[in-house]
Order: sequence, then structure tokens, then C-alpha cells
Amino acid sequence: MALLVQKFGGTSVGDVDRIRNVARRVAASRQRGDGVVVVVSAMAGETDRLLALGRSVTPQGDGREMDQLVATGEQVSVALVAMALHALGVPARSLLGLQVPVRTDGAFGRARITEVGTAQLRALLDEGIVPVVAGFQGVGPDGSVTTLGRGGSDTSAVALAAAMRADVCEIYTDVDGVYTADPAICSNARKIPRISYEEMLELASLGAKVLQTRSVELAMKYGVAVHVRSSFSDGEGTWVVGEESALESVVVAGVTADRNVAKLAVRAVPDRPGVCAALFEPLAAAGICVDMIIQNVSVDGTTDLTFTVPRADLLRARTIAERVVSEIGARAVHAEESVAKVSIVGLGMRSHAGVAARMFRLLAAEGINIEAISTSEIKVSCLVRDRYLELAVRALHDGFGLGRDAPETDAERA
Amino acid sequence: MALLVQKFGGTSVGDVDRIRNVARRVAASRQRGDGVVVVVSAMAGETDRLLALGRSVTPQGDGREMDQLVATGEQVSVALVAMALHALGVPARSLLGLQVPVRTDGAFGRARITEVGTAQLRALLDEGIVPVVAGFQGVGPDGSVTTLGRGGSDTSAVALAAAMRADVCEIYTDVDGVYTADPAICSNARKIPRISYEEMLELASLGAKVLQTRSVELAMKYGVAVHVRSSFSDGEGTWVVGEESALESVVVAGVTADRNVAKLAVRAVPDRPGVCAALFEPLAAAGICVDMIIQNVSVDGTTDLTFTVPRADLLRARTIAERVVSEIGARAVHAEESVAKVSIVGLGMRSHAGVAARMFRLLAAEGINIEAISTSEIKVSCLVRDRYLELAVRALHDGFGLGRDAPETDAERA
Repeated sequence: MALLVQKFGGTSVGDVDRIRNVARRVAASRQRGDGVVVVVSAMAGETDRLLALGRSVTPQGDGREMDQLVATGEQVSVALVAMALHALGVPARSLLGLQVPVRTDGAFGRARITEVGTAQLRALLDEGIVPVVAGFQGVGPDGSVTTLGRGGSDTSAVALAAAMRADVCEIYTDVDGVYTADPAICSNARKIPRISYEEMLELASLGAKVLQTRSVELAMKYGVAVHVRSSFSDGEGTWVVGEESALESVVVAGVTADRNVAKLAVRAVPDRPGVCAALFEPLAAAGICVDMIIQNVSVDGTTDLTFTVPRADLLRARTIAERVVSEIGARAVHAEESVAKVSIVGLGMRSHAGVAARMFRLLAAEGINIEAISTSEIKVSCLVRDRYLELAVRALHDGFGLGRDAPETDAERA
Repeated sequence: MALLVQKFGGTSVGDVDRIRNVARRVAASRQRGDGVVVVVSAMAGETDRLLALGRSVTPQGDGREMDQLVATGEQVSVALVAMALHALGVPARSLLGLQVPVRTDGAFGRARITEVGTAQLRALLDEGIVPVVAGFQGVGPDGSVTTLGRGGSDTSAVALAAAMRADVCEIYTDVDGVYTADPAICSNARKIPRISYEEMLELASLGAKVLQTRSVELAMKYGVAVHVRSSFSDGEGTWVVGEESALESVVVAGVTADRNVAKLAVRAVPDRPGVCAALFEPLAAAGICVDMIIQNVSVDGTTDLTFTVPRADLLRARTIAERVVSEIGARAVHAEESVAKVSIVGLGMRSHAGVAARMFRLLAAEGINIEAISTSEIKVSCLVRDRYLELAVRALHDGFGLGRDAPETDAERA
């Protein structure tokens, strides 16, 4: 008998029929002899409705009370799922974050889980009762309801799975797994059967659509096997697992792209200690996340610095950079919005030479100019004109043999 | 500085503008230097919406989970009211039944409050923070959310006022007080400025529209002064207070009527010990509330028994009565739906003779036949044909001089 944590997202509990469907899935798992802890999100649209209601009272938001308000979304879902289980003859009991308890650091709207009480959950499982736990919510040190931020139910599920030492944390959602690329761009994108935590994190935009980043970090930390799958079909989804269990032989696991970037270039920066800090410290102080940073040393004792920021922060970043430029005696700041970041991700890169070079060649073959490059152990990212985003993704997806119709062999890749 | 508990019902928090209005009232009380504990109901219609949602999953209902579900209604309200107070610069904190805590006996859907934790409420008041407490809900011995039944927020407010030894429990509602009769029947009905707990309880249908019966019993038990008033105007409403503070000189405080009754008459019951028990025990076992019971002993050693039941229970009561009639050898059962109960209520009756006689005379003067009579210390009720209900109420209301244009003197009444 395995112990499963099964998490159902907002679309999976979006109406009464879907809630009944969730109950049938849980009942089926129990009939197979498994113990089940259920975690559910608010019904689709409910959190937004509650946020809008709260903002209609205080537009500027209100940490504690907003959390108290939006936590009702999950409370409605857990009660309805427990009722639906009862209707199938399955003993069940809904539990709020306060009741489990899921203890957090108390940061409203973005709380981090510090501890999960397991005594009550274990007692219920021992009695054959299915605990149905409200995701997204916990209780702070002072007894206030706290929420974990958008998508927090994934994190709730993984935290419960870790605390209960569950065999699997199943994330039921409206897609059936993680794909080698966005199927809207690559019609032949393949579902990835197994992927490592690290790759999942680096896949960012691909992965984040199906699993909150923090939940992956948590799963990695505690070694929780996560199975992302569809709540509307019975097929296997994508297993997110430790490196040792992932498919090591795959060089590139997926291709991902991000249009939400903008580029800033600072020309002729004096090449002396402290110059970089003078630029990036005020950006950090302004809460702007700098992503890629590329520095080229030039021959005349100056250097060019190129970096990217989220597109929404471009104007603020430019203003800060221009102030710094005059202070440090650099030449000028160029801002550019029409860029996109295209990345390939794969554990196998660490042991395969020439992957980056091959990426550059594939882009060049399509006439796509690379404006900046950054690399990590398992990821290579290139900044390109954003009108080339789809073309670049398809070229890399096909070039690394990720498509459904083109199973790649190791020999081909090398 | 007084300590006030201010309870706002569903219509008083029915939309965002009304919630802002509630916040302004609370802020004004605080500016006058009073300490305030706020209790709120779910937004109008919300509890019904949630109950319907729950029933769409399990039509037969589901005690614990239904309570978990409907308790979200008040949770939304307290968060929004706290936000609205913040927007006015008033420090406030919403509290659920679980958080106060409001401890109950754990009976889902009809829980009774056993204890109210006051430590946190006192600490908040000491810091100048307004506690905004979710009415209608509490926490059972096992940590489950429990609700108090419809209208339970009144009971929450009175229980908090008792536990906190508040000076007044203000019940803000959409009517401005308790009237001498239903204004829809008597256009000249007057608002009653002060009324005793006992009269309020006996006024039943008049009183129950503005204040839940259980909350009045609780107020009486702990001597909580309750002020029922409109949340949409500033005028005084009706004070519900102890007998010593009520207006003793008034003989009849109000006239009330109830159409939800049906009459059953059992003819020629053998007049021997145990016969009454044989009839009323099975009715009680079936959960049927018998209201008036009248027994006339006849000359031939048999007796006629007449009693009333809620109209919805008439068929079940008749079936039971018919079975018993054959067992005890009585003659027949007559059932009658077209009846109504008209009552006059007043503390002064105890010391004024002839009040009942005057009631009978007033009804007779209108040609209204009395089918049954029952009396208590402070109430006289007559069963009449239901088509006479309005006529009877007006005749008694005017006859006892309760109308706005006819202030009655003691001399006239005697």
C-alpha cells in the first residue's frame, strides 16, 4: 500500500461535476489499496473573484485581511470535495490550514511553510478517513490565516507529501504533463515522461505553467517524487524526480522561450573595480530582477555591459542606469524591448561537449542573430530579436531531435 | 467609555457600499470614546448560495462539511469589514470562530456556544484594535468548524457581549426596532422603545423577525442589554432589557399573529389516566411540536382534546393521532388547516385583571369566533379562522390602544 498526496487544481474542481470526478479518482485510488491525502485549490476563478471583492473595498490591498478573505476559496473546495467523497461512501474530512495545522512564517500573501503537523493526518489515515486539505493556506505564528501566493497549492501538496513521507505527490491539472516545447509553437512537441527537478526549474516558463517553482524547489529539497498528470484522463503524465532517476542520456530535455525580457546596454564603462556594483546595487535596491549579465572587455580600458530585466521594469531600470552612467563616466545607455530569450535545458549537457555550439549553429542556419548568451550547467540561453522567437524554438526543438516524429539517438547528437 | 458589541446582519453588509457604511458607524462609536467589538453575518444571500452549492453535491446534507462550507460566508464579511475599517484609518482585525475562539458543543448546523475566549479580544481592545468577529460560527471540541443555525449571529453577538461584560449589545438590522404589531397589518403600529426579554420571547413572530429567539434567551440569562436598531438611520430602536428596566405600566406590549398553525381535535376520548400521554408521546417522538393543548371534560365520561401543530406537520400528526384513536377507543380525529393564532403579550397582565376578557370581547365585537384559548402569565392566545387574522390583529391593536395616534392611559385600560 502506497501513500499518495493527490493535488487538484482550480480547473479540476471548477464545477460540481468536476468535483464529483475528483471524488471518483480518489475513491479509485483507495480501492487500489492506497492511502490518499487530498489537497485542493479554490474553484477556478474564485480566487480572482475574491481578490477583486477585496480590492473593491481597499484598492491598495491589505495583507492579513486579504489572506483571511481569499482563503475562503479553498475552504469551499475542501468542503465540497469531502461531501462528494461521502456521497460515494468514502469517509473523508476537510481540513483548513489552521486545522492541519500548516504552520508558516506569517508573511501575508507570500508565506513560507515552516512546519506541517502530521499527527491528525496520520490518525485520520489510520481510521480509513481521507483528509481533504485546503491548499494555498496556512497559519502564521500569531494564529492568523496566511496564504502562500499564487499557485501555492502545489507547494502545500509537496510540503504535505514531504512531511508525511508520501510515496508520490500527484499534481492533477488541466494539462497532461510537461512538454519538450510549447505545443502552440511546436506542433510535434513531446510529453516528457521523466524530468529532473533541476531541469524543471530551468525550464521556467514551460514548467511554471504546470507546477509552481517553489514547489519544485521544495520537492528537490526533500526528494519528493512529483507526478504531474491530467485530471481528465488516466494516462501517465510527467514524473519530476531526482537526478539519479531522470533520463540521464538525454542531452536536451526541452526548449523554452520568454518574451518578457528587455535589454539594456551600457557602453564604454571604465574598466575598474566597483563599477559593476555601482550599477547593479541600485537596480537591486529598486527591486528589479536582473537576469542575464554579459561583460566584454574592450581594448581601450573600457568595457561594455549588457543585461536583461523584465519588460515591465525597463523604464525604471533605464532611469537608474542613466543616472549611474553619468556618475561613473560611461558613455551611454541603450534600451531595447524587442528581444526574447530562448533556452535549451538538459542535465546531459554537463557531460556532452559542443551543445552550446550546436545551438548557435542551429540559430545561425535560420539567419537568427544572437545578441547575448548566458549559460549555466544545464542551460544555455540566447537573446534574439523577439520576432524570431517561434522560429528559434522550432529550429532548436527539431535540431536537437525533440519532436514526436524524430526520436534522437545519442550518436546523432554528439 | 463604554464597551459595545455591534452586530451587523446580512443586509447591513450586503454590498461594498453598505460595508463602508458599517465601517463609518464603528468608526463613529470609537470616536465617541467607546470600545467596540464588531460581529458580522454573511453578506445577504451568501449563506443560501453556499447551502445550495453544498446541496448540489450532497442533496441529503452533510453536517460537518456543510458547516465548513457555509462558515466561509462570515469569513468573507469579517475580512471586508476589517479592510473597510483600515481604509478609514481604524485599526481592526478579523477573527473567525476558530480564532477567538468561540467554543461550542460541536453539534453541526445547530451548535450551542459553551465558552467564549476573551483574552485575545481584551488584548486587541487594549491596543486600540477593533476585533471584527465572524458571527454564526464557532469551533467544536475536536477542532471542527461548527455553525449555530440560521440567525446565529445574533446569538454570537449576545454571547460575546456576555463574556466581555459589554455595556450594550447593539443589533443593527434592516428594521428600526420591534413594533406593537406587524406594520403591514396595522398601519398605525408603534415602535416599542423598551421591552422585556420575556415579552420579546412571547412576541415570537414579531420578535423573531428582528432577533433570534436563542439570543434573547441568552441575553436574559446573562442580563445583556440588547439594542435593536437600524443600520441605515441614527434613531433609537428597541431596547430589550430586564423586567425591572422595562415599562411595567404597559399592560399589552404588542399583538402578534401566526398563520403557521393547524388544529387537530380528538373527540370522545375515554377520560382515564394515561390517555393524554398515549397521544402526545408518539407526537413528540416524531419530532412534532405541539403548541396549544385544550381539554374539555364532557358529561358522559369522555373528553375532547384539541391541539395545534405547525401546518407542515399536520398530515403526519393526523396519521399518528388516528392510530392512537383506534388504540384508546376514542371517536374520531378532525383536522383543520384554516386557523391562525392571535396573541397579546405584556408583562402588565400579571397585575391587571380582565385583560383576557377584554380580548374576547374585542374579538366578539368583530364577529370573530374563538376556537381555542391558551394563556400564560404574560400572554393570551386565541385560535381563530385564518381569514380573520388581520381583522383580529387590528381590533386588538386598536382596542388595547397600541396605535401611534391613540396613546392609551392606565385608566382607559382598566
